[in-house]
Amino acid sequence: MRTVDLNCDMGESFGAWKMGNDAALMDHVTSVNIACGFHAGDPSTIRHTVQTAIQKKVAIGAHPGYPDLQGFGRRNMSIASEEVYDLVLYQVAALKGVCESLGGRLHHVKPHGALYNQAAKSQELAAAIASAVKDIDGSLIFYGGAGTSLITEAEKISLKTGSEVFADRTYQADGSLTPRRLANALISDTNVAVEQARRMVESGEVVSLDGHVVAVKAETICIHGDGPNAIEFASALRQAFGAAGISVEAL
Amino acid sequence: MRTVDLNCDMGESFGAWKMGNDAALMDHVTSVNIACGFHAGDPSTIRHTVQTAIQKKVAIGAHPGYPDLQGFGRRNMSIASEEVYDLVLYQVAALKGVCESLGGRLHHVKPHGALYNQAAKSQELAAAIASAVKDIDGSLIFYGGAGTSLITEAEKISLKTGSEVFADRTYQADGSLTPRRLANALISDTNVAVEQARRMVESGEVVSLDGHVVAVKAETICIHGDGPNAIEFASALRQAFGAAGISVEAL
Amino acid sequence: MRTVDLNCDMGESFGAWKMGNDAALMDHVTSVNIACGFHAGDPSTIRHTVQTAIQKKVAIGAHPGYPDLQGFGRRNMSIASEEVYDLVLYQVAALKGVCESLGGRLHHVKPHGALYNQAAKSQELAAAIASAVKDIDGSLIFYGGAGTSLITEAEKISLKTGSEVFADRTYQADGSLTPRRLANALISDTNVAVEQARRMVESGEVVSLDGHVVAVKAETICIHGDGPNAIEFASALRQAFGAAGISVEAL
Amino acid sequence: MRTVDLNCDMGESFGAWKMGNDAALMDHVTSVNIACGFHAGDPSTIRHTVQTAIQKKVAIGAHPGYPDLQGFGRRNMSIASEEVYDLVLYQVAALKGVCESLGGRLHHVKPHGALYNQAAKSQELAAAIASAVKDIDGSLIFYGGAGTSLITEAEKISLKTGSEVFADRTYQADGSLTPRRLANALISDTNVAVEQARRMVESGEVVSLDGHVVAVKAETICIHGDGPNAIEFASALRQAFGAAGISVEAL
Repeated sequence: MRTVDLNCDMGESFGAWKMGNDAALMDHVTSVNIACGFHAGDPSTIRHTVQTAIQKKVAIGAHPGYPDLQGFGRRNMSIASEEVYDLVLYQVAALKGVCESLGGRLHHVKPHGALYNQAAKSQELAAAIASAVKDIDGSLIFYGGAGTSLITEAEKISLKTGSEVFADRTYQADGSLTPRRLANALISDTNVAVEQARRMVESGEVVSLDGHVVAVKAETICIHGDGPNAIEFASALRQAFGAAGISVEAL
Repeated sequence: MRTVDLNCDMGESFGAWKMGNDAALMDHVTSVNIACGFHAGDPSTIRHTVQTAIQKKVAIGAHPGYPDLQGFGRRNMSIASEEVYDLVLYQVAALKGVCESLGGRLHHVKPHGALYNQAAKSQELAAAIASAVKDIDGSLIFYGGAGTSLITEAEKISLKTGSEVFADRTYQADGSLTPRRLANALISDTNVAVEQARRMVESGEVVSLDGHVVAVKAETICIHGDGPNAIEFASALRQAFGAAGISVEAL
Repeated sequence: MRTVDLNCDMGESFGAWKMGNDAALMDHVTSVNIACGFHAGDPSTIRHTVQTAIQKKVAIGAHPGYPDLQGFGRRNMSIASEEVYDLVLYQVAALKGVCESLGGRLHHVKPHGALYNQAAKSQELAAAIASAVKDIDGSLIFYGGAGTSLITEAEKISLKTGSEVFADRTYQADGSLTPRRLANALISDTNVAVEQARRMVESGEVVSLDGHVVAVKAETICIHGDGPNAIEFASALRQAFGAAGISVEAL
Repeated sequence: MRTVDLNCDMGESFGAWKMGNDAALMDHVTSVNIACGFHAGDPSTIRHTVQTAIQKKVAIGAHPGYPDLQGFGRRNMSIASEEVYDLVLYQVAALKGVCESLGGRLHHVKPHGALYNQAAKSQELAAAIASAVKDIDGSLIFYGGAGTSLITEAEKISLKTGSEVFADRTYQADGSLTPRRLANALISDTNVAVEQARRMVESGEVVSLDGHVVAVKAETICIHGDGPNAIEFASALRQAFGAAGISVEAL
């Protein structure tokens, strides 16, 4: 039987500023990626989010990002690989410790925003991040874009990986995501997105924008928690997966 | 045989700004308190400092502080106890994880600056900090000012404690430190400071500014790493302790 | 004819985190206090907010706060008066320059949160803030709690002042606000709040919690923009003021 | 008679962390670029530095940078031009206001670090920075690398410019600086550096690494204040300029 994980970024509030609808969304996903304080997430937000995740029994991941609160970690930065190693090490360590102090267990790590995007295309950066994760805990699962450097570099050092796909993003013939700045990058029709997701999980393939059938490994699907219809979308996915005999569970 | 620990704050650089002479000082102390990123210490500084401490075989402590880079964690802040718990939990978790990733072991926690000073006088704040430390790792030793709330609250929850004294600060009749803003708060004569330290360790007593002999528990002595003569001072202490048959070692 | 100003804090978003409903609220108030980047407000938020305020023809104020993003400037801090002077100088200078670059004019300054509260009770702190404002521009109006040190210290150096009152907070017999931690600090009934405001403006008096009639100077009323009913409340105030023949306009 | 300006970055301390030897260096340069708080420089450092610059009668410049304390503004960031406009606007406004509050006058603006380097090669970024400077004060002089987009974009909007050259960096045949990562990027021999500077000022030419004589406009020379021999180097330049009949003064 096929299985797939639904993951969602969480814990993205900061002090007085609230973001997301974490507790409600946790009923609809199977794993969560919790911001670690550099691009979002103050210590109280982190602890509360971890606590809720433990109660809701979703798999808990660290979601380290660039030290860029103002830009929410979404702006590319040129940081030396050694320093990227250090800032991932620190953030994952913090999340893991908070998690264990509450009786939970850290399950995975997924880099955030610009760190995720830059490392997807840079072996050096991806290797630095993966090494930091391994040095904290070699049993952590490393989430990264399917087919990107994140996955290949993590595999090189024998980390377990979770290949991530997007239901609501279109793909290019080389298996990469259509950049957001281009038209047609997003799939706004829920039915189309759900169908793309189902096919990716069931058959391991996706149809690129220009009509090619491309192989893709779909182990976990990213749900965008900041969208207004996140819960509806997650429900639609679950329904389609149920009908197709695909089990939704954490890796 | 009497023993005493010499501790020193370290890892207080931040990015391009360097502070302290950590590697050299580590040859002269037995335990170090490493800044965790909130009042000082970026992730790279933290990792390098932990690495050096492991090489130098000194006991490694976390040194959590207020989120106040601009004020170096030295400005009093009114933060709710629950949030203080959270920010200590986060910082200690981060330090512990970095330490273990490098094959080291976290040995103790000492609050920094205003957090240390405010908690010394507040049972509620001290209890919040001690709880966070215990929830991360119940075997950690909790350093705090001798005779203050930090020690009494940690003892209440069965944490091992390290009562800290100052060689170069004068004491009041009630066993508290003379506030820095008052004249005579500091002992500038090295011989006098060394003699005060020796007596505190050997006899468990200190002579207050107004001439009373006050009981004090002296398990660890704070060496101020930012002073120009930190190494000379540590050497003078070690020489005096050696002559008095006092062993210098981590708790 | 009596007149009164309605002021509201604005520009309190930060990066990806949005707060408040600034553009809509500007149709209902006569002056705005714009966060300057230390407790809230990144440079883009500041510029957009100033631009909107110019379009909406409301009086523009700087709203400097403590350097405490995580605590939204609401946590008391012990910062030396000289440094408070410096951080107010910097923030007001920034706001004034941005304002003038867009063809606007800075009209007033109102300290934020814990800075406002601590200075209300500290002559030294209030004097430091008022001096910074005067040194930037002696024609700025200084907003502060009616009857507090903020007003008296500003008057000492001949700054024009705006005595601020709260419609929805209760008062003590000495004219001070009932601390928020106490029961009855807030007035939840809109009619009661509006009536208190009307009487303060019309007669210069307020009835304290324990029944005394206390003199109070009511030149500007604070509208809390983060409340769900801010616009309704502002409308109710305007209606009551209209009926009472009180003109609502900036100082 | 030929004239040239010697400029130096200053005010780069932050809180407890001190950097540079500003007061001493001000006796040897004719203009200073003062950090504005984003990559370095807290409000107190800024005010003190401006005050000293006024006393020493050097021309005062704002030195805006990326919001990256941890990286000292030296790490490339991908920030939208509109947001770069905003962060330059804010920083220059703050510096100008502080300057004027102390009786001084802002004379120029020079972007810092990665902002300077990225804008040197990006018309869009350079135009955004120059526009912000013009919108604050059209009489400010805009410092940028000789021959780069910074100068050409500022000229397009009729800002006065100061073409900056480096005595101790080598040049390429196209007039650009040899990237620091390459060998031979730096000139370590003081005599060679001084001679290069003299020739650039006197003849408007520099010999590139591969032996070409390249035209260069040398209006201001950057002195690196963080070098151990900054004062000696500035003195050597002044002596050589004196011997060559070149006057050293602010633009």
